Amino acid sequence: MTTPKPKIQFWYEFASTYSYLAAMRIEPLAAAAGVAVEWKPFLLGPIFHAQGWDTSPFNLYPAKGRYMARDLERLAAERGLAFALPEPFPQNSLLAARLALVGAEEGWIAPFTRAVFTAEFADGAQIADRGVLASLLEGLRLDASQLLPRIDQPQIKERLKQQTAEAQQLGIFGAPSFVSGGELFWGDDRLEQALAWANR
Amino acid sequence: MTTPKPKIQFWYEFASTYSYLAAMRIEPLAAAAGVAVEWKPFLLGPIFHAQGWDTSPFNLYPAKGRYMARDLERLAAERGLAFALPEPFPQNSLLAARLALVGAEEGWIAPFTRAVFTAEFADGAQIADRGVLASLLEGLRLDASQLLPRIDQPQIKERLKQQTAEAQQLGIFGAPSFVSGGELFWGDDRLEQALAWANR
Repeated sequence: MTTPKPKIQFWYEFASTYSYLAAMRIEPLAAAAGVAVEWKPFLLGPIFHAQGWDTSPFNLYPAKGRYMARDLERLAAERGLAFALPEPFPQNSLLAARLALVGAEEGWIAPFTRAVFTAEFADGAQIADRGVLASLLEGLRLDASQLLPRIDQPQIKERLKQQTAEAQQLGIFGAPSFVSGGELFWGDDRLEQALAWANR
Repeated sequence: MTTPKPKIQFWYEFASTYSYLAAMRIEPLAAAAGVAVEWKPFLLGPIFHAQGWDTSPFNLYPAKGRYMARDLERLAAERGLAFALPEPFPQNSLLAARLALVGAEEGWIAPFTRAVFTAEFADGAQIADRGVLASLLEGLRLDASQLLPRIDQPQIKERLKQQTAEAQQLGIFGAPSFVSGGELFWGDDRLEQALAWANR
């Protein structure tokens, strides 16, 4: 008998700056810890809306927003990542999240997720633009003309709604979040702790 | 000529759970980094009030509050610290903060701060109670009968107001925060980065 590999769920929102940081480092860290990663895109918008917010808390609370931008600059520089806050912020992440769920079915969600985050936070691209999403698919040698229309399929729309509802039921209130060993961890800065928890 | 020792400002709020974590570890970490610590108690209440909050965000947003309590339990256990959320939460920290400013004048602010946080988060004491504060002073071999009345001195009240206004001017929106090398760092989990920044 072999012991199954421990698993971590990586819950992320494509508009989220700290989700970018986590997405760019989770695979090597998880591999080193012997932990499998399940990539779980969801939408923070409905969760924020349920607590009375109509936009990102970084817009609602300007001191926090200014701090976040500088915090990201410092952390990205330490990690050798480019970073600029996109305009507008937050980006509309609906189509990217739906397309990522197509990728979850087909096995390319991880590289697609990194490509979206890099386009958004390093290259200043508009991730709500279907043409941008098509070019990201093509950059991964995927057939955009066949895959992009799946964004509009009812079953993909419904799956994203379900996944967002699941996030809310798990008590998720921000991104990135990790579920590991039955517990919730919030923030890129809890990634190492969440991976250690999976191995307890 | 000797180079002056780099310095970090440690901004904390006595009602703040993450300030407890930082207060209990900042001195050895700063000593190891060769950095001096300036202890800066302030009140988050007026800063929260200015952004429309009448209590802690951990009460306003229950999912975030439940998460914080569990996050603290995990982090405290890793660090060998006791932790229980006090009742009520948040505690009224006004008198403790004023007394800490007396300690800043007289050289005992660091041990007094640790004693308050330990009473509040490890021992379940009410830090708004003057008798509790008196016994903490006595535990440090200080003369409570002479020191405690200074809580009501106009110049101590005014100094706390000024220090809270200074925090707000620095862009501080939560606790703990650190000012290091002219930059702001927020959260116990940024302490190591803030210390490294002081030495750049």
